[in-house]
Amino acid sequence: MRAWEGVFRFPVEGRSKKPRKTGFTMILDKGLGIEETKDLIKTSSEWIDNIKLSFGTSAFYDEELLKEKNRIIRESGVEVMPGGTFLEVAIWQKAYAQYLERAKKLGFTTIEVSDGTIQIDLKERREIIRKALDAGFKVISEVGKKDPNEKVAVSLMHQEIAADLESGAFKVIVEAREAGKGVGIYDKEGKVKEDEIDGIVSGVKDTDKLIWEAPIKNQQQHLIVRFGVNVSLGNIPPADILALEALRQGLRGDTLKKAYLKNKDWG
Amino acid sequence: MRAWEGVFRFPVEGRSKKPRKTGFTMILDKGLGIEETKDLIKTSSEWIDNIKLSFGTSAFYDEELLKEKNRIIRESGVEVMPGGTFLEVAIWQKAYAQYLERAKKLGFTTIEVSDGTIQIDLKERREIIRKALDAGFKVISEVGKKDPNEKVAVSLMHQEIAADLESGAFKVIVEAREAGKGVGIYDKEGKVKEDEIDGIVSGVKDTDKLIWEAPIKNQQQHLIVRFGVNVSLGNIPPADILALEALRQGLRGDTLKKAYLKNKDWG
Amino acid sequence: MRAWEGVFRFPVEGRSKKPRKTGFTMILDKGLGIEETKDLIKTSSEWIDNIKLSFGTSAFYDEELLKEKNRIIRESGVEVMPGGTFLEVAIWQKAYAQYLERAKKLGFTTIEVSDGTIQIDLKERREIIRKALDAGFKVISEVGKKDPNEKVAVSLMHQEIAADLESGAFKVIVEAREAGKGVGIYDKEGKVKEDEIDGIVSGVKDTDKLIWEAPIKNQQQHLIVRFGVNVSLGNIPPADILALEALRQGLRGDTLKKAYLKNKDWG
Repeated sequence: MRAWEGVFRFPVEGRSKKPRKTGFTMILDKGLGIEETKDLIKTSSEWIDNIKLSFGTSAFYDEELLKEKNRIIRESGVEVMPGGTFLEVAIWQKAYAQYLERAKKLGFTTIEVSDGTIQIDLKERREIIRKALDAGFKVISEVGKKDPNEKVAVSLMHQEIAADLESGAFKVIVEAREAGKGVGIYDKEGKVKEDEIDGIVSGVKDTDKLIWEAPIKNQQQHLIVRFGVNVSLGNIPPADILALEALRQGLRGDTLKKAYLKNKDWG
Repeated sequence: MRAWEGVFRFPVEGRSKKPRKTGFTMILDKGLGIEETKDLIKTSSEWIDNIKLSFGTSAFYDEELLKEKNRIIRESGVEVMPGGTFLEVAIWQKAYAQYLERAKKLGFTTIEVSDGTIQIDLKERREIIRKALDAGFKVISEVGKKDPNEKVAVSLMHQEIAADLESGAFKVIVEAREAGKGVGIYDKEGKVKEDEIDGIVSGVKDTDKLIWEAPIKNQQQHLIVRFGVNVSLGNIPPADILALEALRQGLRGDTLKKAYLKNKDWG
Repeated sequence: MRAWEGVFRFPVEGRSKKPRKTGFTMILDKGLGIEETKDLIKTSSEWIDNIKLSFGTSAFYDEELLKEKNRIIRESGVEVMPGGTFLEVAIWQKAYAQYLERAKKLGFTTIEVSDGTIQIDLKERREIIRKALDAGFKVISEVGKKDPNEKVAVSLMHQEIAADLESGAFKVIVEAREAGKGVGIYDKEGKVKEDEIDGIVSGVKDTDKLIWEAPIKNQQQHLIVRFGVNVSLGNIPPADILALEALRQGLRGDTLKKAYLKNKDWG
């Protein structure tokens, strides 16, 4: 039972339940140990849909340790994937088949397909997604570049998003890196550029398929206010998962205030 | 025994001991798991007086897990309370009696009474405090608004502080949120606005009753230099508890330097 | 076995192996508990050479707890030292012999010799280093001041570095504090001042002997690009150790991109 069940209604209602299709939360894990992972899972697995082992960090784990970590995550009903950077190295080095085979052996459930750093054309991208699906993985793709000097035209982004979903990707992530500053929909201070979002959503049929990387609280809040309680968010620091959920469901100052002003006589 | 006992004197002496009445430290916990909580308590319980489960995060715990967590905290001689945001939801939804009853059952020892988001008048506030005391809780109240556009007049703050203490609140927190920026006594960059502090203390009889939320190191340092080793501080991130204690007792560059310049021939 | 061994080559090769002489990584530990320490060690001991218990934080541990923590670190092949601030207090209070004796008893393996806050002349500094070596410790010294208003002339820095190494220090740390802003080689925003680095290395025979404190990602990246995969870095937050290793070995966007552009046809 939830700790406060029956005492009050959540100020913002309608939060999706697991296994959820909208309101997806993806955690960015930079190297939690086994006990930290257990703590995170025990406290918050209901609110986490996917854990990404950031960039190439999974290369530095001992094999048995990583298998154990992935098992703990997987058995709690949370998906786990290596960062897309890692896949890009495999593609570049023509080792994709071995990559998929090892990922399976290590216990990953999902593959992130990105071209944040290396160049991959649309046809190759489609094949990469197909092969991961054939190997039994879920696929999440990512659009956008990591280098702020290398901007992707919004029309190409629309094309990629449509193609990835058609190829079988489950969700498409909009890139913002770990820092969430000076990249994609965020300016140098991490503030949301509303017109960049407008541009992206203008050419996307089903915006529920997008996961917005939003490592910083103000970004999360902005996106929740714009898209609602069940917006999908990624690159959430593990320590912030419950704070994010409080923001979603109106149990934190900013979203609580909106709910309160709308329903002063509620309850 | 303390690890270095007998080897040297603390550069800044006079630190209060538990159960302390001044020099109170309140931790902001955004969702530590059981093992993390045990680690924090084993390492630092002597330096922690109170742990606040931030905003409404405690709503997302499993009941048994939260009971266990609160028990670990409580049995180490540290107080534990849900965030004031949570109480505000209960008041708004006319569920305060149930709130107190459930808080007791979950093992909380202290109730935070705030109106950072919703409106509560002085008379109702007094009753809220009384009811929590009657139910066997300690009470800490909070003054200040979370929304930077909604400033509380300093005269009203003085009135609230006096009334809360008279009603039986143990301490009164001065609001600064988790981020400590652009709110209360801090400017947009998190720097201390000395005149705001002057304004607050000018109308407070016993400044030892105030807990200043000070999540950032420079804020902690400023307040320690201004009010001394035993200033009460809140919203301290769990990872920073020993660093704060080093700052208080002169075992970190900034406060050590002051102590050294005053007592070069000491020892 | 490493988790992905045999699947791909690291984009940046040549990373040194333990016990390494170059490419040293020093972690800044502000108070990890026993389980957190075990997690860090199990996940990352191969990538950590030294753990510094920051400033005077080790004064707040229970003696037995600290012994256990130091034992866990030591037995994994990682060195452990108290912060230099602590030694400065001992020197100031004329308690250096007791300091060394207790440090040994507590299980520290390394002593940091600094004068970031108090004044120590070159002759005394030499004796301090010698005594620590005689007591069976490794010595790492530090140059630079913690107070941004108190700059050390680069010629004195050169003199200190040469003298410390001659006295038997294993490495010399270039001060940047925990925050890495407005101190030493970093400006107020934490950006690297290239000319300050030029000044320092211009008078140092063997730059492999230097450890650059670099708590922020952009600083780490800048120094890795300038000095190579095996630059020695310090004040790394525990949570960032694998991210740093990914940056070193080209498994993170920024350094991966450089490697990719150089070797597009690789693999």
